[in-house]
Amino acid sequence: MIKTDILIIGAGPTGLFAVFEAGLLKLKCHLIDALPQPGGQCSEIYPKKPIYDIPGFPEVLAGDLVDNLMEQIKPFEPGFTLGERAETIDKQDDGSFIVTTSKGTKHHAPVVVIAGGLGSFEPRKPPIPSIKDYEDKGVAYIIRDPEVYRDKKVVIAGGGDSALDWSIFLADVASEVSLVHRRKDFRGALDSVEKVEELSKIGKINLITDAEVVDLKGEGELDSVVIRHKDKAREEEIKETDHFIPLFGLSPKLGPIANWGLEIEKNAIKVDNSYDYQTNIPGIYAIGDVNTYKGKLKLILCGFHEAAIMCQSAYQRINPDKKYVMKYTTVSGVSGFDGSKKEAKREVVKSIN
Amino acid sequence: MIKTDILIIGAGPTGLFAVFEAGLLKLKCHLIDALPQPGGQCSEIYPKKPIYDIPGFPEVLAGDLVDNLMEQIKPFEPGFTLGERAETIDKQDDGSFIVTTSKGTKHHAPVVVIAGGLGSFEPRKPPIPSIKDYEDKGVAYIIRDPEVYRDKKVVIAGGGDSALDWSIFLADVASEVSLVHRRKDFRGALDSVEKVEELSKIGKINLITDAEVVDLKGEGELDSVVIRHKDKAREEEIKETDHFIPLFGLSPKLGPIANWGLEIEKNAIKVDNSYDYQTNIPGIYAIGDVNTYKGKLKLILCGFHEAAIMCQSAYQRINPDKKYVMKYTTVSGVSGFDGSKKEAKREVVKSIN
Repeated sequence: MIKTDILIIGAGPTGLFAVFEAGLLKLKCHLIDALPQPGGQCSEIYPKKPIYDIPGFPEVLAGDLVDNLMEQIKPFEPGFTLGERAETIDKQDDGSFIVTTSKGTKHHAPVVVIAGGLGSFEPRKPPIPSIKDYEDKGVAYIIRDPEVYRDKKVVIAGGGDSALDWSIFLADVASEVSLVHRRKDFRGALDSVEKVEELSKIGKINLITDAEVVDLKGEGELDSVVIRHKDKAREEEIKETDHFIPLFGLSPKLGPIANWGLEIEKNAIKVDNSYDYQTNIPGIYAIGDVNTYKGKLKLILCGFHEAAIMCQSAYQRINPDKKYVMKYTTVSGVSGFDGSKKEAKREVVKSIN
Repeated sequence: MIKTDILIIGAGPTGLFAVFEAGLLKLKCHLIDALPQPGGQCSEIYPKKPIYDIPGFPEVLAGDLVDNLMEQIKPFEPGFTLGERAETIDKQDDGSFIVTTSKGTKHHAPVVVIAGGLGSFEPRKPPIPSIKDYEDKGVAYIIRDPEVYRDKKVVIAGGGDSALDWSIFLADVASEVSLVHRRKDFRGALDSVEKVEELSKIGKINLITDAEVVDLKGEGELDSVVIRHKDKAREEEIKETDHFIPLFGLSPKLGPIANWGLEIEKNAIKVDNSYDYQTNIPGIYAIGDVNTYKGKLKLILCGFHEAAIMCQSAYQRINPDKKYVMKYTTVSGVSGFDGSKKEAKREVVKSIN
């Protein structure tokens, strides 16, 4: 059982900055994230993209912002449970919570903060009615282990980087790779597009454009896909395959948190923005893009503010008898849990006469 | 008459960042500040002090933060009225406002945002009942022109950098300089303390410690001060002087804004934090350290959030018939009013087959 003061679900920029604000109040944090590294979308989806609206940064790469935040919170020694999704929450008699992940790791804390961003990212699925029946029976939305496809026939669908890159990679692994895309235009790194073009010319990738997979066939296991061409003169094509891998990108989903009894509105968690960003369940807060309130803006800079305000309320919940007097870091410096101390040079006090 | 979309009173970090958020919404800003340069306290009081709690900066000098913000807002070409204090506000029939400064400069805008920080900084005065009678008649709290003191007798009070530095400077200008301080301990740069010590030894500064000025004398004009020693055995000393200059630092005051009809609580302006940080007067907002609400934290990062939220509401006030759809800078880039365009590199779209 991992024990901490504030358990933060979601290790994106908002969750990370909450560690700093909590640290100033001498509260320890532990973060859970379904992704294998901290930083949320900034690390996973657009680490090399510039952000222009972080105050004080005319331009910063998303990945650099995460690195800076990790450096800023280092003195407060946050714990991480990564690559595991928060699944269930159980309120204890003393008002504290136990949160259990998809891998069964248990976390115990008096305060839980959901900083889940837009949710955990789940694959976008094509609108094929029978697709659920073939999941894990020939259909996969994420390639975890390419060896699964060795010497097999594979149909990949999609027109972005994932579809291009995996088609290239599997061209040397699978016995046959077909890439099906609804248009002729591919959206991805120029290198990848040209490489697919090249592999198609030498027959290593079977490129099927202006077409889409509209049905799946097979008894129990997938054995073929039905491809419909945009050119209506052409008949539907039945293509034998061992695997169908639609790579249509990721779409955010609130996930199991949606079942925790929290008040949800438009796929986001309602909070009290007139005070402390607490949810309808006392002791559970929601900050950053995952929450909603009148006038909400899904901006990283708003998550930072919400994190700071939330920590004050969490402090009162954890220390009901203490009164916290805010000190400015410019005046009092930052004292890390690791013994580090950052502070401005002090004025000299010298006695004369 | 200066015309703008959003008139911002106070050019500290919060006021500056508001220009950026307004610019994204195509709204133009003009800022008024009593100080001669932008940046508020960060520039005026502690430009060389590190701040540790700006999200994404493990450490940043206050002056550098201001420089970064100025760079960030440059594309939105803010106007500035500096070195003038906003004095009066007049609501026009169409709901817009005219704000007039201490120098009579008039500004006209449909939205006024007070980002006045802790207020304008005014000198701390010693608790001498008669001191008001001698202001500008021998008593000054700020030294504007040292030549005023040439060949005059001057008594300075205080134990910090200002008192030390001006005593040193005036030792070569005035006919006599006395420095009165309540303690033996001086708080200032080591250099300055040692220099005062040295000048005292050679008789250029008359150092009177463990003592304070408790009364002022003179018919109409100041002619002497009464000095009381901590050592009660010593009698009160009457010291002839032309000038008495108490240098006890600056203390923030809300100033003339306090008379604008805004709801004030504990020297701060009450706002609606459950929505848009608007004051009790529609069209006037207050953001940053100058405002107050339940749970308010006087942190720069909170001012940034308040600025972003305020701009959305200001946009609706200025464009009642338009619906604004927020775009992310990471996706849409930043288009400056100066014709500049910042944007992320786009993915290549290439057609094959």
